[in-house]
Amino acid sequence: MKKGAGSLALFGGNPAFTRPLSIGQRNFVGWDRVEHALRGIFSRRYYTNHGPLVQELEERLAGFFGVRHVLCMTNATIGLMIAAKALGLTGKVLVPSFGFPGTVQSLTWAGLEPIFCDIDPVTHLITVASAEQGITPEVSAILGVHLWGNICHPGELARVADEKGLRLYFDAAHAFGCSCNGVPAGQFGDMEIFSFHMDNMLNSLEGGCIATNDDNLAEIIRNIRSSYGIRKSMTVSVTGNGRMSEAQAALALLSLEDFPRNRAANQERFELYQKRLSVIDGIRLVCPSSETQSNYQHVVAEIDEAAFGLSRTVLTSIIEAENVGSPLYPAGSIHHHEPYRTLYPGLQEAFHQTDKVSSRFLQLPTGKHVSGEDIQTLCDIITIAREQAGDIRALLKVKE
Amino acid sequence: MKKGAGSLALFGGNPAFTRPLSIGQRNFVGWDRVEHALRGIFSRRYYTNHGPLVQELEERLAGFFGVRHVLCMTNATIGLMIAAKALGLTGKVLVPSFGFPGTVQSLTWAGLEPIFCDIDPVTHLITVASAEQGITPEVSAILGVHLWGNICHPGELARVADEKGLRLYFDAAHAFGCSCNGVPAGQFGDMEIFSFHMDNMLNSLEGGCIATNDDNLAEIIRNIRSSYGIRKSMTVSVTGNGRMSEAQAALALLSLEDFPRNRAANQERFELYQKRLSVIDGIRLVCPSSETQSNYQHVVAEIDEAAFGLSRTVLTSIIEAENVGSPLYPAGSIHHHEPYRTLYPGLQEAFHQTDKVSSRFLQLPTGKHVSGEDIQTLCDIITIAREQAGDIRALLKVKE
Repeated sequence: MKKGAGSLALFGGNPAFTRPLSIGQRNFVGWDRVEHALRGIFSRRYYTNHGPLVQELEERLAGFFGVRHVLCMTNATIGLMIAAKALGLTGKVLVPSFGFPGTVQSLTWAGLEPIFCDIDPVTHLITVASAEQGITPEVSAILGVHLWGNICHPGELARVADEKGLRLYFDAAHAFGCSCNGVPAGQFGDMEIFSFHMDNMLNSLEGGCIATNDDNLAEIIRNIRSSYGIRKSMTVSVTGNGRMSEAQAALALLSLEDFPRNRAANQERFELYQKRLSVIDGIRLVCPSSETQSNYQHVVAEIDEAAFGLSRTVLTSIIEAENVGSPLYPAGSIHHHEPYRTLYPGLQEAFHQTDKVSSRFLQLPTGKHVSGEDIQTLCDIITIAREQAGDIRALLKVKE
Repeated sequence: MKKGAGSLALFGGNPAFTRPLSIGQRNFVGWDRVEHALRGIFSRRYYTNHGPLVQELEERLAGFFGVRHVLCMTNATIGLMIAAKALGLTGKVLVPSFGFPGTVQSLTWAGLEPIFCDIDPVTHLITVASAEQGITPEVSAILGVHLWGNICHPGELARVADEKGLRLYFDAAHAFGCSCNGVPAGQFGDMEIFSFHMDNMLNSLEGGCIATNDDNLAEIIRNIRSSYGIRKSMTVSVTGNGRMSEAQAALALLSLEDFPRNRAANQERFELYQKRLSVIDGIRLVCPSSETQSNYQHVVAEIDEAAFGLSRTVLTSIIEAENVGSPLYPAGSIHHHEPYRTLYPGLQEAFHQTDKVSSRFLQLPTGKHVSGEDIQTLCDIITIAREQAGDIRALLKVKE
């Protein structure tokens, strides 16, 4: 165990982790199960084009979410792009600025203009008040984001959308297996789009799906996604290849079997972090709201520099030096990044909570590859950082 | 062997093929090699995000095409969409109407307006004359299509593009391993986009790539494709998830090893069809132009109803009934299909060659799963159809 600021890897000590500790879930199944599943594909000789495993996955996921339709996609970005086209949106779409670039970029691909709004500083989610502030007559939809496994007020947002005659859909990349007041994610708004990227809870390496209870929307999506799997041919404004392959579906089906165990292990890791970090001044974990049942797929902390004694940036450097990957991804407020920075010069000071959170948050590693011992080690390092903040500041001055 | 019109499956005979004979290539490698390649991915525990196999594939393909840059994509439609955005195109793009919907749809996704042009009735390709006829001041690029493994006049089209100050790029989905006057596809225009869908020559189930000699374009594409694999960070107008997974790259690498053998086998199949069908009146195979070295991935026939005695539609029904899949895909002239039919009412009579070819062509099965015996059987059936056209017409009248 490290002792003293000088033992930190940032100042020349050995890194605490001999292998890189990534932030994402990486819930991989063992090769023996994968081999069995893929061998089946190769013996059937049916590899893509809405095959039997994709169909099985869509049925299983519809049952899991409790929705009428699940449409699998090759990745969630394509899913978001197809969702926007399927809703027939025009003009502007309201979206929180805090999150991942892909959410907002899907609107740009669909020929729509993103209208950014602020977030709640405690949950990091879009709020009804911030949404209402952003709605203008040109706004045709709200694209909510269930960040970090937290569910963003689907009932209240639906009320606002109804009142204003707007469509409502959700980027649910982080929300697989979460629920709000007992209602599972997948059932909210006009549709919800999930990601099965390896960093998320359900894992098909790359992949995703759209969940909806709307029969007509589902059929439009099938017609846009590709010519395979269409139940009723319809005229749509655009088509594109959103197909998931059988190999992706095979991995997702295995990952779905493991979901309850992976979720429980995430919760244990989260609670261990919480136990260790809640006694340290100046750092707090973002916790699920009281309405949300979380999948705990992210462990997100906020640093109060005045209380902690070090800035978020310095703590991040300390953690990264110990062989932990990218605690600052996503980079934060999307409206500060191109092309939106140039497009919206007037917005650069507009969202105080988003800017505050962006400057204070960092992610801590969790997922199958992170052990309780790893978490103890990392919390020891954060404890050293807090207790020896003065020495660290002095060492950093010398380094300059 | 079937004898007489009554023995055809369309009129109640047993289908000639006990298993379905698909049109696409389906060049799959054996499970033992796949298992070895995939096991390596699972032991490295690196599954996507521009991993070592994607990097190896990009290098190998750059060598294969003889170009400076290859950028792998999750599918070719995404590749075409990203290509249009990377070129910074505005306004209208000239594209042949005859082909696959994805080519034209990529322009719609990129916020561009397709301007259709006619094709050569012999090669089914865009011609310099048809391109020149379609160019207006609002056209910013030409999107050529190398259909059926035929290469579309890259030198002459480049001259036209240069004269008019237009960008030039190619949908090369069918042209993997083809060349024109000794220059490999991949080197033409500003860039070329290949598809590794299982129906094409190189096979990663779903997948594709962009080939280019332009360093700046390559870097823009890397910046659009995702945050992984970027060499130099740049501001781009949009980003999106175009990532290829390691599993896709593993399959493509195996398929690349098999390319010479698969190409040679395609050529044998083509020549067998040619030998049998060249002696039948009213049917001709679309052959590579004298400048093109083809991969022979498609066997495309045209039916002259007056000389053959049956319409293309009737011959297609006869062949399909024998357990052969979709000889009419693609459906033909894209400008006759929605949304373009409604957008361009004035074009519906405009392209005589495209309309003529669309009404006459059909595809015959080829690829690894199609044996010489299968081809002999199918050519026997086509021979019966031609020789007993009168009886068939009479039987069809009775059926009505």
